[in-house]
Amino acid sequence: MDNITNYIEQNKERLLNELIQLLKIPSVSADSAFSQDVIDMSEAIKVALEEAGCDQVEICETEGYPIVYGEKMVDASLPTILVYGHYDVQPPDPLNLWNSPPFEPVIKETALHPKGAIFARGSSDDKGQMYMHVKALEFMVKTDQLPCNVKFMIEGEEEVGSNSLTTFVAKNREKLANDIILISDTGMIAPNVPSITTGLRGLSYVEVEITGPNRDLHSGLYGGAVANPINILTKMIASLHDENNHITIPGFYDKVEQLSQGERTEMAKAPFDLEEYKKALDIEAVYGEKGFTTNERNSIRPTLDVNGIWGGYIGEGAKTVIASKGYAKISMRLVPDQDWKEITELFSKHFESIAPKGVRVKVTPHHGGQAYVMPIDHTGYKAAAKAYETSFGKSPVPQRGGGSIPIVALFEKELKSKTVLMGFGLDSDAIHSPNEHFGVWNYLKGIETIPYFYHYFTEMNS
Amino acid sequence: MDNITNYIEQNKERLLNELIQLLKIPSVSADSAFSQDVIDMSEAIKVALEEAGCDQVEICETEGYPIVYGEKMVDASLPTILVYGHYDVQPPDPLNLWNSPPFEPVIKETALHPKGAIFARGSSDDKGQMYMHVKALEFMVKTDQLPCNVKFMIEGEEEVGSNSLTTFVAKNREKLANDIILISDTGMIAPNVPSITTGLRGLSYVEVEITGPNRDLHSGLYGGAVANPINILTKMIASLHDENNHITIPGFYDKVEQLSQGERTEMAKAPFDLEEYKKALDIEAVYGEKGFTTNERNSIRPTLDVNGIWGGYIGEGAKTVIASKGYAKISMRLVPDQDWKEITELFSKHFESIAPKGVRVKVTPHHGGQAYVMPIDHTGYKAAAKAYETSFGKSPVPQRGGGSIPIVALFEKELKSKTVLMGFGLDSDAIHSPNEHFGVWNYLKGIETIPYFYHYFTEMNS
Repeated sequence: MDNITNYIEQNKERLLNELIQLLKIPSVSADSAFSQDVIDMSEAIKVALEEAGCDQVEICETEGYPIVYGEKMVDASLPTILVYGHYDVQPPDPLNLWNSPPFEPVIKETALHPKGAIFARGSSDDKGQMYMHVKALEFMVKTDQLPCNVKFMIEGEEEVGSNSLTTFVAKNREKLANDIILISDTGMIAPNVPSITTGLRGLSYVEVEITGPNRDLHSGLYGGAVANPINILTKMIASLHDENNHITIPGFYDKVEQLSQGERTEMAKAPFDLEEYKKALDIEAVYGEKGFTTNERNSIRPTLDVNGIWGGYIGEGAKTVIASKGYAKISMRLVPDQDWKEITELFSKHFESIAPKGVRVKVTPHHGGQAYVMPIDHTGYKAAAKAYETSFGKSPVPQRGGGSIPIVALFEKELKSKTVLMGFGLDSDAIHSPNEHFGVWNYLKGIETIPYFYHYFTEMNS
Repeated sequence: MDNITNYIEQNKERLLNELIQLLKIPSVSADSAFSQDVIDMSEAIKVALEEAGCDQVEICETEGYPIVYGEKMVDASLPTILVYGHYDVQPPDPLNLWNSPPFEPVIKETALHPKGAIFARGSSDDKGQMYMHVKALEFMVKTDQLPCNVKFMIEGEEEVGSNSLTTFVAKNREKLANDIILISDTGMIAPNVPSITTGLRGLSYVEVEITGPNRDLHSGLYGGAVANPINILTKMIASLHDENNHITIPGFYDKVEQLSQGERTEMAKAPFDLEEYKKALDIEAVYGEKGFTTNERNSIRPTLDVNGIWGGYIGEGAKTVIASKGYAKISMRLVPDQDWKEITELFSKHFESIAPKGVRVKVTPHHGGQAYVMPIDHTGYKAAAKAYETSFGKSPVPQRGGGSIPIVALFEKELKSKTVLMGFGLDSDAIHSPNEHFGVWNYLKGIETIPYFYHYFTEMNS
């Protein structure tokens, strides 16, 4: 790819500033207070795609937030790559833990990012990684080196379950027809250890509500005599794991993909330092399912975590009350062959079944998605591997990711095409957390690597 | 007591309107946002005591909210009664469950209050019940029938642990010297079943904080691999009760007062309808310690309840996060012979001991108090019993209360005098809950009964 490094060197400031402008828009899809910002963000993406060289860009209205679609068709006989990304971000709270305001991007050096990192919500997940593709296209178009057709589909509901995307994809199979899907919404092991995510976990996210007495009660007058919905909630949640941290929901593990010892040995070769890991999180010990390593627990094994819990008096001081209701948000990460709808059903049935008399239980499914696997002998994987070899000078490591991108499984079902997950962020970049950041070097390296993927994939499929 | 009923009949409107004015002041001591209102409330009490006939009234500054002291000395040779009450109230939240604003009092009829009840935070606990004493004094002074000396001590921190009162009482033993203490901050069994509270539970209130990783984490990247502080918190809290709902803290029951079968049989005679009880709370079944009845569970047995719990993402929508911290407010109701400081210590030691590696635990004691018992052969109890017999036409039932008024034990220790608990509210008046109310009939009946207590107590102690 002629002059890509020069191009990046010459345009570095602009490439950074353009991203910083996008990061200033608080496009939080989970909180309706930010709805106008999410809309504004979709407009900004439309403009960005047009300026990058897409012939045709449209904002496609949905029942939720719009999907921005753009394309640059070179020749119908050439392969077509569909790039997916999302312009919405996670809520920034807890705000007090941010060292700088989440929507006022700043560049600071860190131990892992000696060339600086952009601190802002969405800097990595996914505005930064999505925008690498926009800029890669800009380079290929401007220098007349685009070897194939490209389509962009950038949505605004990824952080809340991509509900509208499901319908959109089903309704637009023709328009979205492609030979491979390309996504940067995952991470890499280390700057000097490029990696391609070959597996993703599925997800089932539910909210539970426990109702005891019909009103808040004085804990002196009623304490000990009625079921306290919060005490019951803790009992019920605690019972979802046994003493080995296996999940106790009947049937939960029935369809879990069992990896061979060989595969597990391969995985174990990925560089990992347990002491560093504990140090980075400031924990004395790791914790998880008996019989599996840390890297297995967060990638090839299903999990159940409380993401939020609340009930009773949580204000300043003390209130001697027995609450009428207790609530929790609970998510389960799933692995290949577990069906998220079936798991959601199993969870609901079980959770309702373990409630004692004296309380009522309500389980509300939020959203979910299937797990995904990418075979390493697929031309999509091979082209990506060669792209990394060219820009990094070394072969990438295939890795199973612990996160979920539910729509990847959806794409395979609806569009019959595989997805290549080229991630350039680091796990330590604190996505979904305060002080999320994305390395400047990583951002630019992504813009450098992506055009090679276009080149090799076209070569292998022509 | 000449003409007390006439006096009440003639002044009914005024007696109600004066209380309603006091209920409009949101004197929430637990929330510093209301601090000025709490101060305003103390001023209002000063004025009320002066108008009722106290010779000398002062606002005594403390490290917290002021204590209002007033007295009417008739003759040093006569008995002295110390009236205690509090002018602060519980926080009104959850506000959305109130049928009318908590600080805009309205009078509405209910099934149990055919003559109407005043709906407002503090209407019963304790502004309404405290003000009965102010108005009873007014009657005795205006009609020149005050048979003894009276002192008033009205504080503003009862709902947050009466911290300043402890110091105040210790420093003012002379000033507060008395022969009996009179408090209306408890309930009665039913309008036609007057009762005197002969026992109160103690209290230990703590806040716990569980810290896992040093920052919020993405539940996909870390889920299953690190201890989730909220999951751990639920496990730890759940383990505090065994399958029989006995509390599992070592040593917790060591000093619990064991009632004889005879005493339990006496208690069982108090009118109680389990079906009515369940219906009123809209619960299918009661729940509590095995081997004890509902009335025993909420009076003679110690308990442990979560009063509030929070952690992680509790906003709208879904956030796939593993929180860095989880919190809970936990209170234990104690019975005679359990020392609240010792129990707090036992709780802290045990709670810290059950935490798995991978999390850190912090237990912060909020406040507490000792349990209390009033012997029914004490002249204080006997005088109260005669007062009820006169105004209600029937003997009151002695009952153990489940609530806590920590300062009652403090008074006994510092002032060497017993406390008579004459309560006129009903358990169903929703104190500490949305829609707290106090029956108009109960309020006026209290004003009618109190002067008789002065009369009989003086008679028995002269």
